[in-house]
Amino acid sequence: MPPVAALQAEVEGYDGQCLRMRAPLAANVNDKGTAFGGSLVSLMTVAGWGWISFRLAQLGLEAEVYVADSHVRYLAPLRGDLQVRAWLDEGEDWEDFVATLRRRGRARLKIEAATALPEGGDACTLSSRYVAIATG
Amino acid sequence: MPPVAALQAEVEGYDGQCLRMRAPLAANVNDKGTAFGGSLVSLMTVAGWGWISFRLAQLGLEAEVYVADSHVRYLAPLRGDLQVRAWLDEGEDWEDFVATLRRRGRARLKIEAATALPEGGDACTLSSRYVAIATG
Repeated sequence: MPPVAALQAEVEGYDGQCLRMRAPLAANVNDKGTAFGGSLVSLMTVAGWGWISFRLAQLGLEAEVYVADSHVRYLAPLRGDLQVRAWLDEGEDWEDFVATLRRRGRARLKIEAATALPEGGDACTLSSRYVAIATG
Repeated sequence: MPPVAALQAEVEGYDGQCLRMRAPLAANVNDKGTAFGGSLVSLMTVAGWGWISFRLAQLGLEAEVYVADSHVRYLAPLRGDLQVRAWLDEGEDWEDFVATLRRRGRARLKIEAATALPEGGDACTLSSRYVAIATG
């Protein structure tokens, strides 16, 4: 994907709770010397998409995952590399999501994502709804 | 700005009502052969930012323009080039915005943006709030 290659994004790690990604500031800097808002949204959107896709792949489920809508809050300028994490929104449940996807061939899921500030707190947060459509 | 260069974005035109920008699909394509959501958000965010910055420059006002928050709706997959327009949200007024910026050194403005489908209708819409801070 050329636009994700342009971000110079890479997966940093994951555990049972979240997926972490990062990208260098230099490739994503705006006219003010801070991280470009579009890059923040791109990286957080990819992290959410990647987290769902990874979890489905672990279960051997084949599905296309689409983002349906997002709410972005830009909280503070970021003057360092982009460090993003994505996790399941409170009130969502992986097992319900997977059961619905198996039964109906389609399921929705809310994912939260945030970009950390090096000094603590977040530069930007993203709340997104994704749709998975079974293809297997 | 490297991330905007990666979009291969260019201004297509403007009139009294809106700014239009475009970018090629090839530079912004996802794993499904359609436009990447992050690129759509980036281009629409830049278009809104550019529209405000351009209008302020026309008035000789020096200000930094920041995006504060956005709501994105992904409506349909886009299989063509990205054609974006940005315009003032209904209920907003350029003159009020400029008067507030002159008086207080800071003003907020809501901008709507949309990415057109070649077959008609929109692939994606963005509602954003921007903040301008006078620097002149």
